[in-house]
Amino acid sequence: MSLKVPSLDKLVSELSKLPGIGEKTAQRLAFYILKSSPSLNLGLRESLKGVAENIHPCPVCFSYTEESSECRICLDPSRDHDKVCVVEDPSDIARIESSGAFHGKYHVLLGSISPLEGIQPEDLKIQDLVQRIDSSSEIKEVILALDADLEGDTTALYLSRLLSEKVRITRIAHGVPFGTDIDYIDQRTLGRALENRVEL
Amino acid sequence: MSLKVPSLDKLVSELSKLPGIGEKTAQRLAFYILKSSPSLNLGLRESLKGVAENIHPCPVCFSYTEESSECRICLDPSRDHDKVCVVEDPSDIARIESSGAFHGKYHVLLGSISPLEGIQPEDLKIQDLVQRIDSSSEIKEVILALDADLEGDTTALYLSRLLSEKVRITRIAHGVPFGTDIDYIDQRTLGRALENRVEL
Repeated sequence: MSLKVPSLDKLVSELSKLPGIGEKTAQRLAFYILKSSPSLNLGLRESLKGVAENIHPCPVCFSYTEESSECRICLDPSRDHDKVCVVEDPSDIARIESSGAFHGKYHVLLGSISPLEGIQPEDLKIQDLVQRIDSSSEIKEVILALDADLEGDTTALYLSRLLSEKVRITRIAHGVPFGTDIDYIDQRTLGRALENRVEL
Repeated sequence: MSLKVPSLDKLVSELSKLPGIGEKTAQRLAFYILKSSPSLNLGLRESLKGVAENIHPCPVCFSYTEESSECRICLDPSRDHDKVCVVEDPSDIARIESSGAFHGKYHVLLGSISPLEGIQPEDLKIQDLVQRIDSSSEIKEVILALDADLEGDTTALYLSRLLSEKVRITRIAHGVPFGTDIDYIDQRTLGRALENRVEL
């Protein structure tokens, strides 16, 4: 499906590269952009330029920041300095922040150990985490908030062996998600939920 | 949900303006763009700039074009000059072209008559269509391919009264879509399908 307008086809092809956006959705978006006021197009371009030019990794936690030194969370003196939550991606921080349940610092690994995909511990920000713990006397607990999959489990195991003599290591609970009927839970999740049961 | 990175929040807010993209999807897209290679970001920006700077309406049919004069379909000598298909939006042309069932020319109204939304015939490219028919001795048939809704019906009625003495006016068939079970068809569509039945 094409109007034989090369610029339009190019936009459709670029939009199709985004996750969850197929060719049909990309066409719908492209026609919407064309039909809308020029400010929509300009706003998109400027915000894309903004993230490309302004955002870089925080040198301490490897989350995203625009600050010239550390990110706002690392710089925030009101946050607990004794707890570091380890996540795979910066987007996980945003998710945890929105829960409002954690007030410590973060450390982003930028991935998880995956022998299948050839991702080794040295490809991740694990050594930086060790240095961060070694150089700070404040960090008492490392909370692992990794994905609940094989790679997340492997990474958690690796980190617990590496760090257990330095700090307390905990992992976020795996179990039945809030609002879910037990009938619909897979057996592995249910097995974990039983294993990790807590006293009432 | 935010990392307190203004450029990132700005991109999420711009992406949320697109149809069918809620805040959560916008965040997923923004994080994907951040995580991807800079060429993805640059490709998006350049293609957005491309459509903003290169595309303008064809002076004859009001579809999109990059050519300095008429659009590629208007310029194509191999297309039937005696048939003009009238559509509401340029995206409708792309849809009809992909069906491969039409080889004439097009005319885009850029909307449909809607008293409720205050869109009058003079707000659309209707006068341009009349002039186009008057100034050409070649156009023998005008095929209306308007949306199957109240506004499309109103516009079709208006155009048929306006043009019926000048050219033959037809309208694309409304009926049961291909691959659909009669059980699932609403009564209005079924009523039209019966009304517009054809001889076998």
